[in-house]
Amino acid sequence: MFKHTRKLQYNAKPDRPDPVMGRRLQESLGGQWGEVTGMMSYLSQGWSSTGDEKYKDLLLDTGTEEIAHVEMISTMIAYLLEDAPLNPSDEELKKDPSLAAKYTGMDPEHSIVHGMTASLNNPNGGAWNAGYTTSSGNLVADMRFNVVRESEARLQVSRLYYMTEDEGVRDMLKFLLARETQHQLQFMKAQEELEEKYGVIVPGDMKDIEHDEFAHVLMNFSDGEGSRAFEGQVAKDGEKFTYQENPEAMGGIPKTKPADKRLHNDQG
Amino acid sequence: MFKHTRKLQYNAKPDRPDPVMGRRLQESLGGQWGEVTGMMSYLSQGWSSTGDEKYKDLLLDTGTEEIAHVEMISTMIAYLLEDAPLNPSDEELKKDPSLAAKYTGMDPEHSIVHGMTASLNNPNGGAWNAGYTTSSGNLVADMRFNVVRESEARLQVSRLYYMTEDEGVRDMLKFLLARETQHQLQFMKAQEELEEKYGVIVPGDMKDIEHDEFAHVLMNFSDGEGSRAFEGQVAKDGEKFTYQENPEAMGGIPKTKPADKRLHNDQG
Amino acid sequence: MFKHTRKLQYNAKPDRPDPVMGRRLQESLGGQWGEVTGMMSYLSQGWSSTGDEKYKDLLLDTGTEEIAHVEMISTMIAYLLEDAPLNPSDEELKKDPSLAAKYTGMDPEHSIVHGMTASLNNPNGGAWNAGYTTSSGNLVADMRFNVVRESEARLQVSRLYYMTEDEGVRDMLKFLLARETQHQLQFMKAQEELEEKYGVIVPGDMKDIEHDEFAHVLMNFSDGEGSRAFEGQVAKDGEKFTYQENPEAMGGIPKTKPADKRLHNDQG
Amino acid sequence: MFKHTRKLQYNAKPDRPDPVMGRRLQESLGGQWGEVTGMMSYLSQGWSSTGDEKYKDLLLDTGTEEIAHVEMISTMIAYLLEDAPLNPSDEELKKDPSLAAKYTGMDPEHSIVHGMTASLNNPNGGAWNAGYTTSSGNLVADMRFNVVRESEARLQVSRLYYMTEDEGVRDMLKFLLARETQHQLQFMKAQEELEEKYGVIVPGDMKDIEHDEFAHVLMNFSDGEGSRAFEGQVAKDGEKFTYQENPEAMGGIPKTKPADKRLHNDQG
Amino acid sequence: MFKHTRKLQYNAKPDRPDPVMGRRLQESLGGQWGEVTGMMSYLSQGWSSTGDEKYKDLLLDTGTEEIAHVEMISTMIAYLLEDAPLNPSDEELKKDPSLAAKYTGMDPEHSIVHGMTASLNNPNGGAWNAGYTTSSGNLVADMRFNVVRESEARLQVSRLYYMTEDEGVRDMLKFLLARETQHQLQFMKAQEELEEKYGVIVPGDMKDIEHDEFAHVLMNFSDGEGSRAFEGQVAKDGEKFTYQENPEAMGGIPKTKPADKRLHNDQG
Amino acid sequence: MFKHTRKLQYNAKPDRPDPVMGRRLQESLGGQWGEVTGMMSYLSQGWSSTGDEKYKDLLLDTGTEEIAHVEMISTMIAYLLEDAPLNPSDEELKKDPSLAAKYTGMDPEHSIVHGMTASLNNPNGGAWNAGYTTSSGNLVADMRFNVVRESEARLQVSRLYYMTEDEGVRDMLKFLLARETQHQLQFMKAQEELEEKYGVIVPGDMKDIEHDEFAHVLMNFSDGEGSRAFEGQVAKDGEKFTYQENPEAMGGIPKTKPADKRLHNDQG
Repeated sequence: MFKHTRKLQYNAKPDRPDPVMGRRLQESLGGQWGEVTGMMSYLSQGWSSTGDEKYKDLLLDTGTEEIAHVEMISTMIAYLLEDAPLNPSDEELKKDPSLAAKYTGMDPEHSIVHGMTASLNNPNGGAWNAGYTTSSGNLVADMRFNVVRESEARLQVSRLYYMTEDEGVRDMLKFLLARETQHQLQFMKAQEELEEKYGVIVPGDMKDIEHDEFAHVLMNFSDGEGSRAFEGQVAKDGEKFTYQENPEAMGGIPKTKPADKRLHNDQG
Repeated sequence: MFKHTRKLQYNAKPDRPDPVMGRRLQESLGGQWGEVTGMMSYLSQGWSSTGDEKYKDLLLDTGTEEIAHVEMISTMIAYLLEDAPLNPSDEELKKDPSLAAKYTGMDPEHSIVHGMTASLNNPNGGAWNAGYTTSSGNLVADMRFNVVRESEARLQVSRLYYMTEDEGVRDMLKFLLARETQHQLQFMKAQEELEEKYGVIVPGDMKDIEHDEFAHVLMNFSDGEGSRAFEGQVAKDGEKFTYQENPEAMGGIPKTKPADKRLHNDQG
Repeated sequence: MFKHTRKLQYNAKPDRPDPVMGRRLQESLGGQWGEVTGMMSYLSQGWSSTGDEKYKDLLLDTGTEEIAHVEMISTMIAYLLEDAPLNPSDEELKKDPSLAAKYTGMDPEHSIVHGMTASLNNPNGGAWNAGYTTSSGNLVADMRFNVVRESEARLQVSRLYYMTEDEGVRDMLKFLLARETQHQLQFMKAQEELEEKYGVIVPGDMKDIEHDEFAHVLMNFSDGEGSRAFEGQVAKDGEKFTYQENPEAMGGIPKTKPADKRLHNDQG
Repeated sequence: MFKHTRKLQYNAKPDRPDPVMGRRLQESLGGQWGEVTGMMSYLSQGWSSTGDEKYKDLLLDTGTEEIAHVEMISTMIAYLLEDAPLNPSDEELKKDPSLAAKYTGMDPEHSIVHGMTASLNNPNGGAWNAGYTTSSGNLVADMRFNVVRESEARLQVSRLYYMTEDEGVRDMLKFLLARETQHQLQFMKAQEELEEKYGVIVPGDMKDIEHDEFAHVLMNFSDGEGSRAFEGQVAKDGEKFTYQENPEAMGGIPKTKPADKRLHNDQG
Repeated sequence: MFKHTRKLQYNAKPDRPDPVMGRRLQESLGGQWGEVTGMMSYLSQGWSSTGDEKYKDLLLDTGTEEIAHVEMISTMIAYLLEDAPLNPSDEELKKDPSLAAKYTGMDPEHSIVHGMTASLNNPNGGAWNAGYTTSSGNLVADMRFNVVRESEARLQVSRLYYMTEDEGVRDMLKFLLARETQHQLQFMKAQEELEEKYGVIVPGDMKDIEHDEFAHVLMNFSDGEGSRAFEGQVAKDGEKFTYQENPEAMGGIPKTKPADKRLHNDQG
Repeated sequence: MFKHTRKLQYNAKPDRPDPVMGRRLQESLGGQWGEVTGMMSYLSQGWSSTGDEKYKDLLLDTGTEEIAHVEMISTMIAYLLEDAPLNPSDEELKKDPSLAAKYTGMDPEHSIVHGMTASLNNPNGGAWNAGYTTSSGNLVADMRFNVVRESEARLQVSRLYYMTEDEGVRDMLKFLLARETQHQLQFMKAQEELEEKYGVIVPGDMKDIEHDEFAHVLMNFSDGEGSRAFEGQVAKDGEKFTYQENPEAMGGIPKTKPADKRLHNDQG
């Protein structure tokens, strides 16, 4: 169960409105690697965790924090959309190309659909969907996913940082950068502990089952020679990579039966 | 540019048809973490890589291999769908509950839409979409994503392994397990090399910009005490985690302006 | 069964082309609350209605009218896209920022995909999908949905009205505004009649089953005090709201079992 | 900002596992009208509200409660999936048709993708998406939407109630039924107050602009006579409905220009 | 503008309920090639047509008919869902495997979401979306698309025909088969006329611009020799196909610049 | 199985960067009718083909070529995005409206998400999805689909050709135009051969089953007279079209039963 305080976790107020930046920030909210993806993935993983309390708790703490990040970015976007141009005349546009940039660079649904408040979409209006999240039941795999979520998210925040000079926006982004550093580090730490326990290959208990002879082979399917650089190097499980210059097709030519006539496949 | 050989990379023939297993295998083909996701992510990353040839080549080699995995699984599914029941009578169903299981456990679109061949969907008929892929331009982040792709995929293959006794299906899955071991290991190796060069935090050059005081703090947003276990531990960047038992809201209560009257927000 | 007349229900011709407005009007066509949503929801509800003829007929009349609205807006958009710039030179753009606004503010798929005619998308190119519609079999719930459809749609049309000065566009919007007034009112009337018969809570026959002690309690999950304003007020079913300042967690800490080993959850 | 307690808001434990019911409950979690839709809609509306504190607070309180409902249902689904059959033999299926029903009636992705824990999908595996939510900036419209959300959700919970005999599941559903009664009533109350202030037609200030002569006319587009039943009745805005038996097409036959030759429309 | 008659275009009543068949028929309603795709594509093409009246009219006539087909199939599905099992006991399932097949073979959203009426989804619950439609402005291309729509749809109806013995269902399918024969033939006829006017290659006026030396070459990218069978044959434009056994890569190795440092691509 | 060469199939280098054109080219990559749709459709059809080797091989050759086209367009887009503006100042925008056009006309996700490399989306950021592909098992139907894919794709390339003056871009488009000519012609040829064998109506063996009296009737559902032009003409199957001026509703008024009370349909 959750409780809410009206105060934001951190400052989320720009120095001045900027509807184009408002649109771009939607990536950090409703994009593939945005805060909603973090929030829904970590909460789902936490709720379904049956293992060690410390991982469960770490997931739920971080998932709960991410709701606050969604809140901050939603707030920031609403501030950035204040006073955005609704219907500049041709005269005004001709006089001020930067107005034209604002007018056509903003998200038209911010005005038409949301009355100048944030959506749950990415900057191209793509609706956030649960296909962005992961909760597999396997903690090593999911901790790795969480590190990626924080890596891609921090990368995007870093790019957004250089797309504005607004000190208010930058202040919030600097906070998000720091939290995404922490989240990368904490999930890496959890990942490492779990790898120690369950093995570096996910999942850890199929080694005796897999066709082991193909498990450390760099197969070369191109005329590039770059992959050979890894030949002989020691993999994280202690074994060495070999290199196969010309991997052969081992499987024969498939030959399925024509389908039941009632399917009308019209194929022989 | 690509060339194709009609032979499969490895065996992909079951001992006998099984339309329920055919449906389940769609996860490894058109699911979030299936082979199409690998293929399209690695190829995209490879094509957009501007850096060291060895990473570009590793990505393109592996992406090219994944097309062959899509081919193998498509073939396997078509074999598994041979002779699937189209329209068993109530009499037949009453006599044989395992026939009923086949009939209602298979994907109805396998027959209606695809004439008993594979689709590009997951087992619930969800169409594969590019929102599953990642190609960010940042190699550390993307190598981490690739490790996750191979981890989640191998996890699913491991589960599928125990959902069948068919030796033909298992033979193919054992091969895929091994390749996904290799791919996990190779992308980890690349990731480590790149981390050494660019730092373990993605991206590596924002440390002086972020609000550093929040970058190593475990913030406790719950009444669980689990996260405290990480307090004092050394993070991968060499600094120690601190623990904040009661993180306060630092950001004040937001107060945006009412919107332009022409938006009819009807709010004050 | 349906018949079509080539004449439009109402005028749908702008005074002059305006590709940016053409893009914005797509919201009223293919957006979440656009005319296609109305048309497909009302027709589906009407076709599946088993109750009083008057509601069934009202739904089918209105659904049939909405097809004509889709037709009108499609026509209007095609007119607005006439003469849209395909490939202005840098010279031309430098001279005329309003041309630049038109060029970059229009939907690129209007030209590339649709040859300057309407799409079935929203202004951000999001394809209309049936997840926007509702047809539940319960008439009270669905009449409420229909009132919302007409409310959100009329709100958007009102906003679009202020985004253009074109008298032709405004003429059509004034007609749509009026029809959406009528549709709001008629669905409200039907809703009220049905509520009288079946109760104001949907569905009306579960009162003896639900845990009644939680059915009129304003639960406060925040440090805001605003919700308390409703305390003691009379709800539409005649009972009074109570206010719970500090709702407690009544459910205990969940503890599911670790999953079957064959799922490789790696969670203890 | 949010805080989390590990205790659930209410009991969420079944008497015994039932993977088919686990699948069906996904509708209340990740379906169009499920708890995620409530949670994300109310929070978004609350964060973007600029009006009276009491509505903002009501929205945020309820949105915060809905996160706890997502948590409860996720937990319940995980319990229901305990011991679900992974790979029953044909022999077992032949002996026990109810096992076959469990095996083919469960969601295959519950096992393959989620390791027998909840997803963020509906029972057909459709990923939740933000196109289900609404936050328009207009409070009357959005309060109406919220009443619909609670109506459709309570309808579905009522149906799910009769799809199980499990007393544990029913206990949780009885609680959700009650809360959805409260939420319907509170949002209706807010809606009524706001309608009093802003008018019953959304938005309230376009009456002088719309083509008023079409604003109270029941237009008959079918050979059904049912709609006539509303003729002469008083609409909620105090005016009377008129009935038009044979609405004429007022708009003429449209005639757009052939497109620019460079678009290759090949149409005269 | 449209008018509706309450009578169906043709019979749509089964001899007896069959919820599994009800689910399967959703393909013809809300699937990729279902009636909604026909209806929305033909109407959109018709509304945007600027050319010869006869094509415009043919499109609008057929689009209008397809609404009636959506109506018929919706009606049929509702009939098929009558008396579908909501909650059979384990005892009942054990006694009757055909009941189990009905119970787990039906679409769970038919009961939970739609109260046993049709949805706008395919049999796997995938929501119909406008990405299935085509309206390009080019009549030759779109007439070809229409022929495909009718071909794939008739193929699916033919398959559905063999999935039931119900004479009522089959009667409706026989009618749809005939109409889809007509629609294939009429769109082929229109296509041929248009090809005569504009050329068989779409679009017809780029021959002088394309790199003509690659316009009639069968390029062999595999070790299969099958494509060679077309060598020397006369193509529809009168020229002969040539065969290139070993097409070479003509384009060099691409070398894009590293991106702006502010994008943090971390690639050399 | 596949092999890759680092060389491109053809030149894919622009004379100079142009981020707006880079965005527009995404249509040919990740749009409904883009190269990914070709690639995934032809490969799927080829892998599932059980018929004549020459069709299987033709499909796989062409599918393999399309991967190379995806590669070329991805490369071209990356070149076009070089040096795109990240954060021009208002001063710069005011001075140069063509800079404003570049800045607001480019895809914001090209910079934020992809670090100035290609995505797998269309120009509006819509993610490519497998609902665009077709693989039905019926070769006549699918060859027709393939002709459409090549027609719509070539149409779009022709439009894109006139949206740029860049000789490098145009060189690549001229190559694609030629290949799409070839692909149209080859699939038409295959289609014709198959039609000769299986009949021009898909599928060919249902003529005795369908209600033949409706199979050659132009039904007029509008006040347009255009369709009559086809009356008496000879259809491709040798029979003549008849014209029905006033098609009557043959199906009666449907009357389904009220649903089970436990579904709460509240409909009498």
